[in-house]
Amino acid sequence: MAKKYNICLDIGGTKVLGAIFDEEEKIIYRLKKKTKEGGDSSENVEEVIISVVEEMIKESGIKKKDINAIAAGAPGVINQETGVVLFSPNLPWRDYDIKTPLEKRFGVPFYIGNDVNVGVLGEYKYGAGKGYKNIVGFFVGTGMGGGLILDGKLFTGNQFKAAEYGHMVLNTEGPLCNCGQRGCLEIFSSKKGMSAYIREQAARGRECMLADKIENGVFKSKMLKKSIAANDTVTMEAVDRACHYLAVATGNMINVVSPDLVVYGGGVMEAVGDVFLEKIAAEVDKYCMPSIRTTVELKNAALGDDSILYGALSMINGK
Amino acid sequence: MAKKYNICLDIGGTKVLGAIFDEEEKIIYRLKKKTKEGGDSSENVEEVIISVVEEMIKESGIKKKDINAIAAGAPGVINQETGVVLFSPNLPWRDYDIKTPLEKRFGVPFYIGNDVNVGVLGEYKYGAGKGYKNIVGFFVGTGMGGGLILDGKLFTGNQFKAAEYGHMVLNTEGPLCNCGQRGCLEIFSSKKGMSAYIREQAARGRECMLADKIENGVFKSKMLKKSIAANDTVTMEAVDRACHYLAVATGNMINVVSPDLVVYGGGVMEAVGDVFLEKIAAEVDKYCMPSIRTTVELKNAALGDDSILYGALSMINGK
Repeated sequence: MAKKYNICLDIGGTKVLGAIFDEEEKIIYRLKKKTKEGGDSSENVEEVIISVVEEMIKESGIKKKDINAIAAGAPGVINQETGVVLFSPNLPWRDYDIKTPLEKRFGVPFYIGNDVNVGVLGEYKYGAGKGYKNIVGFFVGTGMGGGLILDGKLFTGNQFKAAEYGHMVLNTEGPLCNCGQRGCLEIFSSKKGMSAYIREQAARGRECMLADKIENGVFKSKMLKKSIAANDTVTMEAVDRACHYLAVATGNMINVVSPDLVVYGGGVMEAVGDVFLEKIAAEVDKYCMPSIRTTVELKNAALGDDSILYGALSMINGK
Repeated sequence: MAKKYNICLDIGGTKVLGAIFDEEEKIIYRLKKKTKEGGDSSENVEEVIISVVEEMIKESGIKKKDINAIAAGAPGVINQETGVVLFSPNLPWRDYDIKTPLEKRFGVPFYIGNDVNVGVLGEYKYGAGKGYKNIVGFFVGTGMGGGLILDGKLFTGNQFKAAEYGHMVLNTEGPLCNCGQRGCLEIFSSKKGMSAYIREQAARGRECMLADKIENGVFKSKMLKKSIAANDTVTMEAVDRACHYLAVATGNMINVVSPDLVVYGGGVMEAVGDVFLEKIAAEVDKYCMPSIRTTVELKNAALGDDSILYGALSMINGK
């Protein structure tokens, strides 16, 4: 292409992570900024996005006229065609058109999609999912996100709301989730779910290395890693429970989709290595039809924290 | 088309149902034959299929040269491209090529797909699903079948094995299913599941109109209808439990797919009218994300016992 750089963004609840890709699809510059400091309004997040893009251009020394496009993944229900964020649990945007002002500001096309959808797309095009056709992705972080590649394309369903299997009910008698349901995957297997279990056990007087590390309802993934390394009893109970229900959900999704790959990403997977994957793999056969299980592989994501950045890149180049 | 008639078949575990469609897509002749009588081999089922087709041609008075194609739905995992039945729980076929002998015999193209997949396709093209784009279908019969229309096309996943959400686990502590899992949809909501519940209650000395009507593990759908009409206590407990778990499964599938329609078909739905649909609709909001629920409709199938025949027709005409 004539214009050789693409700018990709991972917009989170508290930060904007940016990267500049060169024409060989390598990341040549990175920047991360927090969003909360200057207030919590639509404008603030938009200002942080703008400042990340401008600072990256300036500091990397590339020319504005060499920028081909900008793309982003963000949490929530996002209309990928119009660039309107319909609803986001962690961002101050409701029916908010983020595409128009950014295209006006930078004079290049702007693309945006749901962060986990985009992350699974990234793994499909550049990571663990290369060469597969039907992929179920679980992204384990503060919450539990999902993304589906079906027949070789990102599947977003009616009005871009598909792949919310973080809230699939697995045990109708289970604990209550924020979403109002009982026993859905997120309440067992996300950082929020594991943290809630640890707090409950700590409240009963049991010791757990992670109990006093929980802030705003969650521990940090690297603290989880330490606590697993120390084989902390209550931590391992929370991990075993998380993996048990991830295995059940994986089995259900194998039965629903008959994928050729199930991929596990997100901050927790990135931090703990193969601990979760091995536990899930050991149990999943119990929860899906043997004839379907035989043709599906389970893998960890390969791009780590960059899944969403690479997925944004593939929204731009359509690859 | 030059050749004006299409022959469509619904191949079941114990019968072959046939219909001739004219060029206006109306059924002009029907025939049903049992399969089990002459033995239970691959050849026998194939012979019954051949005799249904030949007898329909003869009795309807159409000419063989006016037949355009033959298509069928059958239970099991079926490669729609090659016409090979890979596996079928209720038919004596394993890796069995049914397409080649039938094309040779009748000299016209032969198409075959999984019966519930084909039935949901029929509802999409000719029935309750007309005009929708993403459809989740539940077919409630002896077992529990599923079919998915995604982005306006029948979705079959890797190796034609998708949409087995009859075996989605909904309650990890639930009763054991034939498939080896606990608490999957089929064990609660199919005729097998309801029959098992009724037998258990009868064994405890409770009275139930349906208890002595169960043969080969299931009651007949029209007996269920009578028992519901009489408001039989244990029957209604079985129905309420079936609808509760159908509501949970519907909620899960709404979260996974974000469909614009969920359609309920099969022998039970055909027999009982809106009883199940109303109970499911009353509960489903509890089991899916409110923001996704708002853009999905729930309906009964419109084609009754003909869903599979119409789906077979749409495999032929590609409509």
